Amino acid sequence: MSKVKRKTKVIYLDNAATTAIYPEVLKTYTDVAVKIMGNPSSLHDLGTVASRMLMASRKQIADLLEKKTSEIYFTSGGTEGDNWLIKGVAFEKKSYGKHIIISAVEHPAVKTSALWLKTQGFEIDLAPVDSNGFVKLDALAALIRPDTILVSVMAVNNEIGAIQPLQGIANLLKNQPKISFHVDAVQAIGKLMPADMLPERVDFATFSAHKFHGPRGVGFVYIKEGKKLQPLLSGGGQEQNQRSTTENVAGIAATAKALRLFLSEMAHKQEKIQAMKSVLMTALEAYSDVVIFSQTENFIPNILTFGIKGVRGEVLVHGFEAHNIYISTTSACSSKAGVASSTLGAMNISPRVATSAVRISLDASNNMAEIEQFLTIFKQLHEKFQKIT
Amino acid sequence: MSKVKRKTKVIYLDNAATTAIYPEVLKTYTDVAVKIMGNPSSLHDLGTVASRMLMASRKQIADLLEKKTSEIYFTSGGTEGDNWLIKGVAFEKKSYGKHIIISAVEHPAVKTSALWLKTQGFEIDLAPVDSNGFVKLDALAALIRPDTILVSVMAVNNEIGAIQPLQGIANLLKNQPKISFHVDAVQAIGKLMPADMLPERVDFATFSAHKFHGPRGVGFVYIKEGKKLQPLLSGGGQEQNQRSTTENVAGIAATAKALRLFLSEMAHKQEKIQAMKSVLMTALEAYSDVVIFSQTENFIPNILTFGIKGVRGEVLVHGFEAHNIYISTTSACSSKAGVASSTLGAMNISPRVATSAVRISLDASNNMAEIEQFLTIFKQLHEKFQKIT
Ligand SMILES: Cc1ncc(COP(=O)(O)O)c(C=O)c1O
Ligand SMILES: Cc1ncc(COP(=O)(O)O)c(C=O)c1O
Repeated sequence: MSKVKRKTKVIYLDNAATTAIYPEVLKTYTDVAVKIMGNPSSLHDLGTVASRMLMASRKQIADLLEKKTSEIYFTSGGTEGDNWLIKGVAFEKKSYGKHIIISAVEHPAVKTSALWLKTQGFEIDLAPVDSNGFVKLDALAALIRPDTILVSVMAVNNEIGAIQPLQGIANLLKNQPKISFHVDAVQAIGKLMPADMLPERVDFATFSAHKFHGPRGVGFVYIKEGKKLQPLLSGGGQEQNQRSTTENVAGIAATAKALRLFLSEMAHKQEKIQAMKSVLMTALEAYSDVVIFSQTENFIPNILTFGIKGVRGEVLVHGFEAHNIYISTTSACSSKAGVASSTLGAMNISPRVATSAVRISLDASNNMAEIEQFLTIFKQLHEKFQKIT
Repeated sequence: MSKVKRKTKVIYLDNAATTAIYPEVLKTYTDVAVKIMGNPSSLHDLGTVASRMLMASRKQIADLLEKKTSEIYFTSGGTEGDNWLIKGVAFEKKSYGKHIIISAVEHPAVKTSALWLKTQGFEIDLAPVDSNGFVKLDALAALIRPDTILVSVMAVNNEIGAIQPLQGIANLLKNQPKISFHVDAVQAIGKLMPADMLPERVDFATFSAHKFHGPRGVGFVYIKEGKKLQPLLSGGGQEQNQRSTTENVAGIAATAKALRLFLSEMAHKQEKIQAMKSVLMTALEAYSDVVIFSQTENFIPNILTFGIKGVRGEVLVHGFEAHNIYISTTSACSSKAGVASSTLGAMNISPRVATSAVRISLDASNNMAEIEQFLTIFKQLHEKFQKIT
């Protein structure tokens, strides 16, 4: 980043990749890091103070999610949560069966965990999605077998923002008590109401703090009371022996704070974001060579994925970057690898069209002036690309 | 902790459980968290800045350990490092053999990882230690089989401070290129010179930041160039596809800073700590009913584990706590569980004697006045216990 550029204001529209930590959250982190120095496992009272702070954070998160305190376990982020829950359930239940169903549009943390289980003798089926990116319930139902032990479907897709039909899947699994239901809720938090994000039938769910202005390297999982799985990190016996390691008390307290702030006035924030998405949609739809991959109905307002036909997504990303506007190709982690979006692939969009995709991801901290600036620059870039092609 | 107590100065002698974050390290954390908000995987220049910071931290750590930058991978702490390296090597090499040797005094993160592998068809042998807590080289040699794929021995024991004979093990494995050698170096960093902590023959090693005044929830592993293992956290492909998750850039930069500060003037610091241990040793040895479990030769000066015959360790911990002096039973993580030390058990010390054990763990931030205060209080407590028993 050149010095000249740093002086102009950054327009950050890549909030699905990561969010800036809230200043108040950073303050909680530093306060707790300074004041609470004990190891929560220690017998002495410095340990007790640390362990109380841990419990208060756990309770706050559980309350916000309308779950029990004992159902929340801390992790290092979404990837650990997904790996733990998928592999942990599989190993726990393998005597009952070795068949697992995940959707075709899961995040790589779920997908690669399931694929790794294949090397351990498990069978994996991918539930297909329709052309809008929604899991097909009938197709998923058809995949269920007597030896199915786990179904994993994300609440909200990270590449296009589709809200998956969790309630429909919950209904399918209603009379299948032996099948565990895992939900990757990393992109859903603050966008769906707790009851929609975690229907009663859900047994396990994954969350990550840096997606809601919390610290990096912290996350948590929901494990429904009574549901068993094997630990991924075993050792000293922390987190009820489910996830060992010296607890990151400062990071955990900061996460609880971030979640509280993020979820406050959620309806209002989502309305504001919806208004921005509508303006973007209307403006982009006016270009005949723009393809829009994110719909409105059953999509979160925060994500808008689109492309200019014939223009590679990364070219557009760099075009905006030169104006201090930050968007991304469809997911941060696949972007450097240069691979086309797997979600768009699963939607049967041709690789040629899929490589044009870019993702705008909005936050309540964005505003309409930024959206207008984005659209002004888009117009300029679009003209430039038309001259080239 | 009562308000009255907080006013008197805390004497913290539990640095093997966790250390207070250095103020400069916390500042690095906050500076980086505020300034570098991009996701290192992002294509745009906010991502590039983040990824440069990551690389600079990695290089700094590698330089301090006298290793290559590409040999350092970040984790969430010692437990993840141990789980990853043990399980990852086992799964990677299982077609060559399924036999693993760990020492009888490993941290639970190593021990439980190995025990879990037993449920996956691996065979685990524990290499015994002598009455001082050192791994017996001849006994370890006798356990090696043609199908042995991994030997894991810690550099420094966390319960008594014994320095394990890594060079001797390296010699045993010199002509065994197919056996991987893992070292849990969590308690060794800053106490042994890099070459003693990581002899050339070591393939994998584990580190944790909160043991050297870095942030909680961050660690790193050393993976020798060319050595393969399977990821524990798979997903977006970060860390050369070896350990996925959005990188905790602030925590990682803070870790590099902490390590630099911790290792600076290391010889001087260790001398200071040695002087404190000597005073403690001499004073404690004068009590006829005190048993000392930590020796001097081939023990780090930082740890001194001892007990008063017939007095349970936790009683002593609470006795000191009332005077704002913090020590622990032999390890923080086993303390709440109330289980006797597994290291002392492996040394053939009877459970009755082992339950008397407490651990003092020193840091360069401690001083002789604190040691004298500790000994004054010890004298008082000792008199009190004598009256009771
Ligand atoms: C849906 C989804 N699941 C999991 C993850 C992984 O989260 P983390 O980066 O915290 O490991 C992400 C984000 O990267 C995500 O969008
Ligand atoms: C020798 C040893 N290994 C591993 C660990 C685990 O480290 P962490 O608490 O960072 O997971 C510890 C400390 O608790 C330790 O002393």
